Amino acid sequence: MDEKRRDTIFSDNLRRLFEPASVAVVGAGDDPSKLGFHVMKSLVEGGYGGRIVPVNPGRREVAGLASVPSVREHPGSLDAAIIVVPAGRVERVFEECAEKGVRGIVLITAGFKEIEDPEGALRQERLAASAERSRIPVVGPNTFGMVNRHVNLNASFTPEFSLLDPGGISLVSQSGGISHLLAFMAMEQGVRIGKVVGLGNRLNLDFATLLPYLMEDPQTRVIALYLEGLDAPRRLLEEARMWRGKKPVLAYKTGRAGTGNLASMSHTGSMAGDHAVWEGALSQAGILWTQTAQDLLDAARALDVLEPPRGPRVAVLSGQAGPGMAACDVCEEQGMEIVRFSPRTQEAINGFLPPLALRSNPVDMGPAWYDAEATEGIVRAVLKDDRVDAVLLLMMFASANREAVPRLAQGLARGGVQKPVVACLKAPSGIWDQAVERLEGAGVLVNLATPERAAHTLALMWKYGLLTDHKA
Amino acid sequence: MDEKRRDTIFSDNLRRLFEPASVAVVGAGDDPSKLGFHVMKSLVEGGYGGRIVPVNPGRREVAGLASVPSVREHPGSLDAAIIVVPAGRVERVFEECAEKGVRGIVLITAGFKEIEDPEGALRQERLAASAERSRIPVVGPNTFGMVNRHVNLNASFTPEFSLLDPGGISLVSQSGGISHLLAFMAMEQGVRIGKVVGLGNRLNLDFATLLPYLMEDPQTRVIALYLEGLDAPRRLLEEARMWRGKKPVLAYKTGRAGTGNLASMSHTGSMAGDHAVWEGALSQAGILWTQTAQDLLDAARALDVLEPPRGPRVAVLSGQAGPGMAACDVCEEQGMEIVRFSPRTQEAINGFLPPLALRSNPVDMGPAWYDAEATEGIVRAVLKDDRVDAVLLLMMFASANREAVPRLAQGLARGGVQKPVVACLKAPSGIWDQAVERLEGAGVLVNLATPERAAHTLALMWKYGLLTDHKA
Repeated sequence: MDEKRRDTIFSDNLRRLFEPASVAVVGAGDDPSKLGFHVMKSLVEGGYGGRIVPVNPGRREVAGLASVPSVREHPGSLDAAIIVVPAGRVERVFEECAEKGVRGIVLITAGFKEIEDPEGALRQERLAASAERSRIPVVGPNTFGMVNRHVNLNASFTPEFSLLDPGGISLVSQSGGISHLLAFMAMEQGVRIGKVVGLGNRLNLDFATLLPYLMEDPQTRVIALYLEGLDAPRRLLEEARMWRGKKPVLAYKTGRAGTGNLASMSHTGSMAGDHAVWEGALSQAGILWTQTAQDLLDAARALDVLEPPRGPRVAVLSGQAGPGMAACDVCEEQGMEIVRFSPRTQEAINGFLPPLALRSNPVDMGPAWYDAEATEGIVRAVLKDDRVDAVLLLMMFASANREAVPRLAQGLARGGVQKPVVACLKAPSGIWDQAVERLEGAGVLVNLATPERAAHTLALMWKYGLLTDHKA
Repeated sequence: MDEKRRDTIFSDNLRRLFEPASVAVVGAGDDPSKLGFHVMKSLVEGGYGGRIVPVNPGRREVAGLASVPSVREHPGSLDAAIIVVPAGRVERVFEECAEKGVRGIVLITAGFKEIEDPEGALRQERLAASAERSRIPVVGPNTFGMVNRHVNLNASFTPEFSLLDPGGISLVSQSGGISHLLAFMAMEQGVRIGKVVGLGNRLNLDFATLLPYLMEDPQTRVIALYLEGLDAPRRLLEEARMWRGKKPVLAYKTGRAGTGNLASMSHTGSMAGDHAVWEGALSQAGILWTQTAQDLLDAARALDVLEPPRGPRVAVLSGQAGPGMAACDVCEEQGMEIVRFSPRTQEAINGFLPPLALRSNPVDMGPAWYDAEATEGIVRAVLKDDRVDAVLLLMMFASANREAVPRLAQGLARGGVQKPVVACLKAPSGIWDQAVERLEGAGVLVNLATPERAAHTLALMWKYGLLTDHKA
């Protein structure tokens, strides 16, 4: 079989791994102190619609489902297998999966390359050779698993991943802890993540192999990566350059400091490497570098909904002066420009606001609180201004502006918007939630938790735009 | 009357203003498009237990309460007056308040020093002279008001301030927008704020006059300031130096960038001034400088519960390697040290964790997930180590560690802890909430939303400690 044909089989198998019609759980069980219990729980409670086949030679059924002694003995076909049996038994399971025609594997079991005993690395090499022969893509080993919320597939040992609201963000991560962190943050903050993949020791799936799949996956709109270190960064960078600009790719990386770097060596067997070198290399490949988990999530969420601004010229429209100033500080520190409006725009704003107000950029819309048409009028005038690349829209709730945001939502959601609007529309729970959801749902804006995070997110979007404007 | 006696009267009046037995609302009304309606709503719905006296010459009752035409005509005594009548009528109300023996005023009305018309500034000067004669402290003018949640006093036009859970943080702010922002953030994040004061145009109450009051206020444990610019920064700095170290004072300041600086000039009539000069001056006075609204809130919350660390030596104890690395990055970037444990501590840790694990700092406690005693044992051993000044405790939920945090809570809350523990114990809503509340309630730790925020907050606490270690 030639190499190209083999690659095609691998890619087909990879797609099937993310949307399998049937899943075997090798090592399924009922003991809550073991992973086989939690994986079954994840699959069943996650609402997976395909067939679930527990595999356990010592059981007739697990979690109320008929069990088989081995994958080979399941009468129907099997698309995917999740493996949690001890490391020493995995090779045999791999061979059985190959014989059975299983298309993809999630290997949760640990005890391979990451352990001190050299047998671990040898085991992993043998598994890699086996997977190479059968062209079976393998998530792991030494991973929590993977999740595709678009088909309710929770192939992980954490049932709570199914609480994720599915959306356009796909996360590929070198750390289980960071995957859980980002997922729980996303739940709290209403950020929608569709896919999470824990790479683990990367038998034959890594950032470089998953990138083409996610670029072609219609449900993925933004690709978020968590990196510690890589054995072969060049492959990721080459893939990223090839796909540059098709979908936003963001990276978050720890191990910048000395201690973390050493920790990474022990944790993943790879040096985290020099921070600045990494940032430069990723940027050149069109990957946006983010500094914290929160930045990654904010930027991914914004780029899922909005196009990046075409330039650095920001209009700050604020319901109160203080938050507007906070946003201006961040914009200017990040290299963006608080633009001077065109005379025509300024005239329009002057028509809506009394002379007392801050009417030039940043605009203090406070005096228009009771007049929702004025607020919408200002936003519309500024969006039409050719000098403006993006709008920061900030409004802190107070009794007098209660109606301003719902009415703005009515107006803007109807008319649509041609430039990115990043917002901080902030009220106690329940007051503006519906209006904000409507604005976000209509693709008009994203709403961040503070004016500073809104401004910083806009700056990250702008930087992403800069990385991909001039394709290599 | 000599100056000292006059100062004492002013201070007594100020205390009474925050805990009045009766409050008049001058300009109370039933029209939801006017502030007099919202202020009444704030007082009534906030559960204020004293007497509420609506003042409105055109009404017999407001919000179901008997109304009087002027404060003078109320038969009983009046401790405080909240004024929302138009600017031109305020002088007369001030005279009536003085005659009536009112002890303090919240002047919400705008249209004074902040307007272009020079009459505004003149009006404010006349009011200042009037308040000087009567020794009445005045919050405002041009403010949303003030809140003392410890006595359910919501003297503002935003009834939702009453949703604040009262605690040891007192916030004094030059911006209504930022006050609302911080209050809503606090509600979302479970941060407890007891007092909020919107300074407005600062007739005779500003940072410098409120600082001594809050330093002596038994319910205030941390003082948080939001600054834009100050006419007389020296007075604040002198007061702060005098009280240095008694209670943590934190400042958050915008107007760092050029645009914001100009905006501040228009907004508050004061230049925001040079960032670096401000940071230096505040630090020398023992005030901790914070960069964002989130930093202010995180640091205030931590210093409300925990003592600052005695030095920069951190132990990072993490349930997963990735979050530990993220925390190490922030610690080292902030100048803290990921310390090498004493041989004795290291031996204790080695007794709890298998050789495969990261057992030196940062410690990966993952292998002890199923063994809550091991987790507590590691934390206890590290807390006893003289080389350790503070602990970062990080744990991302996964099925297998579900019991780790509740058991840790049982152990640590019982025994107490002598060094600051800043945590990120992260799970989907409902899983660890009770255990975390117990740990926070017992003063064992504060729990932040991300490992990076936990590390950054610890660094801010350490910096605060440095500012106040050597008292002037």
